[in-house]
Amino acid sequence: MSQYPSELLTLIAYLKKLPGVGRKTAERFAFSLLEWPQEENKKFAIQISQLQEKIHPCPECGCLKDSTTCDFCDPKLRDPSILCLVSSARDVYAIEETKAFKGVYHVIGALLSPIEGRSIEQLKIEKLQNRLNIHPIQEVIIALDSTLEGDATALYLKQKLDQLGVKATRLALGIPMGSSLDFVDYGTLEKAFTGRQIF
Amino acid sequence: MSQYPSELLTLIAYLKKLPGVGRKTAERFAFSLLEWPQEENKKFAIQISQLQEKIHPCPECGCLKDSTTCDFCDPKLRDPSILCLVSSARDVYAIEETKAFKGVYHVIGALLSPIEGRSIEQLKIEKLQNRLNIHPIQEVIIALDSTLEGDATALYLKQKLDQLGVKATRLALGIPMGSSLDFVDYGTLEKAFTGRQIF
Repeated sequence: MSQYPSELLTLIAYLKKLPGVGRKTAERFAFSLLEWPQEENKKFAIQISQLQEKIHPCPECGCLKDSTTCDFCDPKLRDPSILCLVSSARDVYAIEETKAFKGVYHVIGALLSPIEGRSIEQLKIEKLQNRLNIHPIQEVIIALDSTLEGDATALYLKQKLDQLGVKATRLALGIPMGSSLDFVDYGTLEKAFTGRQIF
Repeated sequence: MSQYPSELLTLIAYLKKLPGVGRKTAERFAFSLLEWPQEENKKFAIQISQLQEKIHPCPECGCLKDSTTCDFCDPKLRDPSILCLVSSARDVYAIEETKAFKGVYHVIGALLSPIEGRSIEQLKIEKLQNRLNIHPIQEVIIALDSTLEGDATALYLKQKLDQLGVKATRLALGIPMGSSLDFVDYGTLEKAFTGRQIF
């Protein structure tokens, strides 16, 4: 009796599946949706239900696209001699925001994690090998998270790239911009020392 | 070029309208939805689009219901001699969780707020007056937020109830359970002193 109507409970259950959303937040979202104009809710629902039909990963690079051609693979727009390896399509947009990279991307889709059951097979290394064979790629930038999983994956990919004779680089580790030294952890500070640059 | 596909941008715009959700969180939600099974997204979308058709406020008390009868208005289940005034249908469920109240509810739908343009008309006081005339209500508990808007609304309602000759009570103000005195603000502490109870 004291429970929400069943339709609302179902909606709350779905909202709770969003990352970082607990019961209280899901309830707040559901009651907010109840107050939206009905027309808005319909449009929002259409957007969610058509999501995967409208947006799909490019079969070549793995970046998201909503048209038949992939802008990230277009040799007229991008430099195909340098390739950036990222773990998810989302990282591509973060890197694009910097405007520091004009090469092509390759989304591996997952990081190695024995605990979560993600092994070498998930990285689909053959797809990367095929691209390296076909295209004149001179450098591969490994741009993965600086976490245990990211580092393990980077190390594995580095070995593979060495075997293929391709130059592999990785993102610089150091002090984040705007941070003061006493708030930086020792690991980062050590990496900043060993990777110091000429001023 | 560095922007998300337009369909994803539209979805992010909708997600940003949820309470407390900023750009980063909306992006995170959108990318999470991209990874959900397509079937789940469809079901989630149906839930959102049908929300207002399936759930509507009871015309009598304003509580949410998904059937033709309102459990909160049923005189067999609830005591109609005591009425609890709340600002939104959500508060009803919070009070129900306590199992401390067995009377009927009345949702006023809004709190007075001159800044946000909510005046006395929004409280639909005639609806409450009608209920008080028809039903044998002996006590009205004003259970509104302890905020500026909540207090202003409570004061106005108290005056109205006095005119109608109905006994009005309000929720006790005091120290929240489990809190230590040095973390309680002075205003709350003062209310706890003036409202002290026999031990």
